[in-house]
Order: sequence, then structure tokens, then C-alpha cells
Amino acid sequence: MFRVTRRYRFSASHRLHAPELDDAQNQRLYGKCNHPFGHGHNYVLDVSARGPLDPATGRAADPEALDALVGRHVLAAFDHRNLNVEIPAFASAVPTSENLALEIGRRLKDNWNTAFPGEWPRLDTVRIAETGKNIFEIRADEIE
Amino acid sequence: MFRVTRRYRFSASHRLHAPELDDAQNQRLYGKCNHPFGHGHNYVLDVSARGPLDPATGRAADPEALDALVGRHVLAAFDHRNLNVEIPAFASAVPTSENLALEIGRRLKDNWNTAFPGEWPRLDTVRIAETGKNIFEIRADEIE
Amino acid sequence: MFRVTRRYRFSASHRLHAPELDDAQNQRLYGKCNHPFGHGHNYVLDVSARGPLDPATGRAADPEALDALVGRHVLAAFDHRNLNVEIPAFASAVPTSENLALEIGRRLKDNWNTAFPGEWPRLDTVRIAETGKNIFEIRADEIE
Amino acid sequence: MFRVTRRYRFSASHRLHAPELDDAQNQRLYGKCNHPFGHGHNYVLDVSARGPLDPATGRAADPEALDALVGRHVLAAFDHRNLNVEIPAFASAVPTSENLALEIGRRLKDNWNTAFPGEWPRLDTVRIAETGKNIFEIRADEIE
Amino acid sequence: MFRVTRRYRFSASHRLHAPELDDAQNQRLYGKCNHPFGHGHNYVLDVSARGPLDPATGRAADPEALDALVGRHVLAAFDHRNLNVEIPAFASAVPTSENLALEIGRRLKDNWNTAFPGEWPRLDTVRIAETGKNIFEIRADEIE
Amino acid sequence: MFRVTRRYRFSASHRLHAPELDDAQNQRLYGKCNHPFGHGHNYVLDVSARGPLDPATGRAADPEALDALVGRHVLAAFDHRNLNVEIPAFASAVPTSENLALEIGRRLKDNWNTAFPGEWPRLDTVRIAETGKNIFEIRADEIE
Repeated sequence: MFRVTRRYRFSASHRLHAPELDDAQNQRLYGKCNHPFGHGHNYVLDVSARGPLDPATGRAADPEALDALVGRHVLAAFDHRNLNVEIPAFASAVPTSENLALEIGRRLKDNWNTAFPGEWPRLDTVRIAETGKNIFEIRADEIE
Repeated sequence: MFRVTRRYRFSASHRLHAPELDDAQNQRLYGKCNHPFGHGHNYVLDVSARGPLDPATGRAADPEALDALVGRHVLAAFDHRNLNVEIPAFASAVPTSENLALEIGRRLKDNWNTAFPGEWPRLDTVRIAETGKNIFEIRADEIE
Repeated sequence: MFRVTRRYRFSASHRLHAPELDDAQNQRLYGKCNHPFGHGHNYVLDVSARGPLDPATGRAADPEALDALVGRHVLAAFDHRNLNVEIPAFASAVPTSENLALEIGRRLKDNWNTAFPGEWPRLDTVRIAETGKNIFEIRADEIE
Repeated sequence: MFRVTRRYRFSASHRLHAPELDDAQNQRLYGKCNHPFGHGHNYVLDVSARGPLDPATGRAADPEALDALVGRHVLAAFDHRNLNVEIPAFASAVPTSENLALEIGRRLKDNWNTAFPGEWPRLDTVRIAETGKNIFEIRADEIE
Repeated sequence: MFRVTRRYRFSASHRLHAPELDDAQNQRLYGKCNHPFGHGHNYVLDVSARGPLDPATGRAADPEALDALVGRHVLAAFDHRNLNVEIPAFASAVPTSENLALEIGRRLKDNWNTAFPGEWPRLDTVRIAETGKNIFEIRADEIE
Repeated sequence: MFRVTRRYRFSASHRLHAPELDDAQNQRLYGKCNHPFGHGHNYVLDVSARGPLDPATGRAADPEALDALVGRHVLAAFDHRNLNVEIPAFASAVPTSENLALEIGRRLKDNWNTAFPGEWPRLDTVRIAETGKNIFEIRADEIE
């Protein structure tokens, strides 16, 4: 069993603001991430797949298939976009990095079979770094 | 003569759109940086000062004075902000990294004497990286 | 369940010397880390918390609460300090990175409830890098 | 229980070409990694050992013993070498990063006792990065 | 005047061997870079252009034009290639990083006008890192 | 003309304290760098040499000769050492990074001919980073 991780990058803007909370609460909770006009990040996304070695190819996961999957279902939608405005899930959920990892994980999990129709490899982990100091990780088996 | 560089980081959003050009021209020129709702970056800002060694302190530039200057005149205004909306200079100029470096350089040059009232150190260079693959640099003596 | 990691940095000096061993044994064991007047490092500390998403805030761990905890109980004591002289635990234990990770883990575990009084998030892992080539990691449930 | 990771680097060349497949299949499968004259990488190898703290030394793994083991059984054979031509295992197996991690893991596992004759530390994980965007990891207990 | 730098990466193999020298001299001169079957690197290439700001676009250099130039004249020829065998210049010159920077600089200089037909921007510097510890830089005005 | 840079690392401890100033002045001037028992850093040292290409070897500077020079005259003396106590120059000068760059530059300049007896390459620049956020650079022709 191998864990194969590929790293992707996208640049996006967002604003953290919870609709059920009032302005003072939002400001206390999110600090400068609550600034009214938003800000942005160069996100680093690590997608890990898990599977056994295919002895014929020497690979545990086809990197082009993974790139195509992430490209179509994540990067095309998130890169150089405003997460609050352009990602439907963030009409209701706050685009924190936790929710961002969850949304990316759901998209990859839902479409995994189109890229990897066999039993293996499986999606293992989605990890997103908002900056070099903030890393958020979710295991695929904990994504609902 | 030493060159002393300190590195700062800020996260901001922007959209590249030149008001004198039409939509098709903007899209051709700026590509996905022209997406209508903006995006963002973790900017890395390197400010270099130049000066002789002060033999009493062993320093060519007081790092706390530089940090205070950059903090007050750049980071407080730019960090976690929307550059197009919240920085007056970008009401007319497109917030490219070149214009961003120029605006930061002007702010530092205009206020340099409040931090460093003597002959030395002088502002040497402003360098801004939008991502790890795009670096923009201007020498202080070329900032008008 | 998410794992949220925040990265901190501190600069400290130390000397590796085991009091029960003689000088030759210490030198053989620790090499240049045993040099008599000590040396130092820019330590990189990654603290990981684990917990479920709070749907109201979109967060699994309040980053400001974690920063305050690490700041008060680790960085204030360790940053720009001599570990052998200024950290009581290292009067008896050798300040290796293993012991450093253990001491940091104990401080975070002992004070965790002051920052996170609820059931979640919990301390997951403490990871310390002495240099980019040496990484030491301990899971919270293995800290006594 | 600690996990201690040490990072090593080596530069090598390779070509991905599966002997059982025809040229068109190889090109489709490996893309530019199948170019006929090979190419190369600066590989980053992270070897993790796992073990309890030795209270006398404050260490979970002797770094010099690990360096000597990796140096003798991996770096001496792989660094500045052509993997296809100079590593016997790659006469039959394709030198993908999965197979490279596996071969390195086998060499470390087979010779572990010469460096660490006691019960602890044990080899925990071998992780190899072909570039900063491709990371391959295998747990020692899954190496046959 | 701005200096705009864009970073590119390519993976290639090479062998350092000077045809006028005998084997012992080659081995003494190039050490393990002279190993007979070659090795490889993940090269990092920084190309800097220099020019004034275009007030209409806010740019000193069109990044897409630079990417197209470097892609066509450098990356397409060098990435995932064997430098000794596949780059004609290295049939006679040893593919050291100095010669590599020179060859890349010549290709960019010779074709610069196809990408940037105006007076500005001009090619400023070519910088190539073989590893993170070896950086080679040549100014465009010193490229013959 | 090429500029060839090689990167070195050393770990050292120091304390910033100017003997002519009183304690309150020292604390105001150096902040936590004045803590009485010292602290330390993983210093990153970049040494740049400048020279023309030797057509026979394809090199502008022999990397082994530079490594031997820096190893003997800098790393052997500075690595895993207490700069205040073990480097004679810092008995009188404060071991700031400026003074550290100057001392390293003097040692390299004084011994340059033993490594490079010809006209070229010449020492071009010494650059030292105390952390990733503090970089200090001196040109060889400004070292007295």
C-alpha cells in the first residue's frame, strides 16, 4: 500500500462571515478575516490517494488521471475565483479552510469513480494550506 | 555598505481590469486575473534598506524601526484587504504587482524620514512576490 | 473530524550533554551538539489539534485560542532563550528535540482546557523541526 | 513513542518504460517520463524511525546511526546515478517513485539491524518526493 | 524601471565530461557529476525582464508572452530530456549549469523580439539553480 | 561573466549586547536578542563568486575549491558554536548579522587566493540570513 500525494495550487478570495451571527460577533470570531470587502490567498492543496502497486506500471495511482480529476472538479471552479460568490456551497457555509477542505473532498469523492473506476486507488486525504502557517486536513473516510 | 532585507507577508484580494479597455481586451490581457469577482494572494514583500554599519550597535538598519514603518504604512492598509476597493491608488491604477510594488515603494519613500531621520539607511529596493513564480522589483531611486 | 495544524517558530540555544556520562561519551554521542558553549536553532513547531467542524463557525479549532495557548505556555518561555539554563525541565533532561517536543507537549496538554474547555478540539500532535532535515513528532495520547 | 524523521537528498536520472508494453502504450502511460534518453530529479528522501525515548540520552533514534545506514545502503548507490542502469532492481521493475520508495524501504529494512540491533527504534515510513509536487510514501510494515 | 522575474522548472539529466581531458582528470574535476551513466536534476530557472511600466496595463512585461517564449525555446527542448544527447550545444560544450544558463540566455536573447518586439522590456538576467545550494546567474548584456 | 552562488548552513548561538551601552539601552536596542543567556539560529550563508567561463571545464568557479575554503575558514569555526565566546572578532564587536557577514567576508577575502590563485573568480557577495525574514548582504568590494 502506497500513499501518493500530488500538490496543486490555486489563488482565490474569500470573506469569513457567519450569517447567523451579528457584526460584532463576526468581528470577534474572525478578526481581520471578516473585513467587509474580502481578501485572498494562494492556497496549496495536497490530494493523497492510497492503493497497492500495479506491477505492470510500477504505479499506485495514475498521476494524469488524478490531475484531470482535480483540474476539472476543483481547480477550474476555485482558481482565481471569489469563493463566497462563485462556489454554491459557500452561499450557506462560511468559506473557512475547514469547509474548503470538506467541499473539495466531497467533489473528489463524488467524482472519484470517473477517474479511478477500479477498487484502487482510493481517495485518502485532502489537505489544504491557507498560508504556510495554517494547514487543514480531512481523511476521506470522514467526509460525508 | 550593507543591504538589509526584511520579509513581510500580507493576504489581499484584487481584480485586474483596465477601465480604458473593453471587456474582451481585458480578458485577453489579464486572463483569469480578470475574472469578475476577483481572487487573492499571499503576497511576500521584501523591503531592502542600504547603509553603512553603525559601529556602536553593529547594525546598518534598526529592524524595529523598519517593521514599524512597514506595519503602519503598508501592512495595516493592505493586509486582509481588497486592493481595488480599499487602496485609493487603485481606484485609477490597475492593482498589478508592478503597481503594487510602486505604491508600496511610494508609501515607504514618503514616510522614510519618520523612521530613519538620518542620512542612512536609505530605502534600496521593494520586491513583491505574488506567488512563488512571479517576482516584481523596483529600486527606490526609480520610484517617482 | 479535521486535523488543524498551526506553525510557530522560535529561536533558542542549547547544548546536548548528559550528566551521567563522561566527556568522551558525551562527545561520541552528541558530536558537535556537545560543543561546550552551546549553539542554536530556528525551531519550527507544528501544533495539530483534532476535532469536528462547528457548523456555526465553519471551524474545527479557534486559531486565536491556539495561538494564545502556544504563545503563553511555549513561545514566551522558549523564544530567544537558552533552553538548558532557562527551561526548568532541562536542568535534568538533555534538551534534545525529542525532549523538547515532549516538554512542549506536556505544557500544551496541561493547559489545553484553559484554551479549549469543551470536549473538542483535542491536542493531536506536536512536531518540532530543529532544522529542515530533522523532524521529531509525538502524538498527544503518548505524552505522559 | 516518537517519530523521528531525517531528510536526505540525491540526484539521479531515470526513464520510465515498461518492457511488457509497446512504445505507444508506454508513451501514453508515462508521457514525457518515457522520453527515450531519460531525464532526472533532485529526489528528497524522508526516512522516519519510531521508538521510545532513551532517558539516558534523550533520544529515540541515534541520528548518526541512521545517517550511516542510509548513506551506505541508499545514497552511495543512488546519488548521481542512472537508476535504470545502475540499480539492479530496476533491470526488471520500472523506476517509478513508488518502486524507488519500495526499493529504498527494502534496503533499509534488510539492513536495519546492523544500525539498530535492539528492539527500538524501528523503521516507520519511507517517503520520497520526486519534485515538490509528487510525494510517495510507504509504511515499513507494508514493505515485503 | 521594474525587474519582473518569472520562475520555471524543468527536469533533465546530464553528465559532466570534458572531451579534451582524460578520464582521471574528468573524475578529479567533476567528481560524482562525472559518473558514466549520468544523473539528473529538477532545475529551477528564473528569467528576469526589465522595463518601464505601461500605464495602460499596469505591467512592465506581459507574463503570457514571456511564458510562451520560455516554453517554446527552452522548456519544450529541455524538460524531461538528456541535455548531453538532446541539446545540440552540448555536443561540444560540457552541460554545466554555467553553460546551461548561457545556452538558455542565448535562446531567449535570439528570440526575444518575437515575443517583445518593442524597445521594452528587455531580457535582464537568466538564473538557474541546479539544486537549492547551487545558483548560476548571467546578465543578458554579458551573453554573446 | 557569471555569478555563481553556493549555499551553506550553520547553527550557532549568540547574544546581542553592546559593551558601551548600559543594560536598559541594550534591552531597548536589541529587545529579546539581548536576553542574558543567549539564543541561536540556523544561519543560511550564500557566498557568490564572479568570473568568466573557463571554456575547457564549462565552469566559472570550482565548487569544490569554494566549499573547501568556506568549510575551513567559516563553517569549521562557526558551526555549532557560540559566536560571542568562540569567535575572536566578537570579543569586541556585537555579533549582529551585519558583523557576522562582515567577519565571514573578511575571512573569505583574506584567504581567497589560497583557493583561487588566478585573476578569476573573485569573491562577489556574502549574504547571510538569520531567519527567513532577515537577510544581510555585503559586496566584497565594500569589505575592508
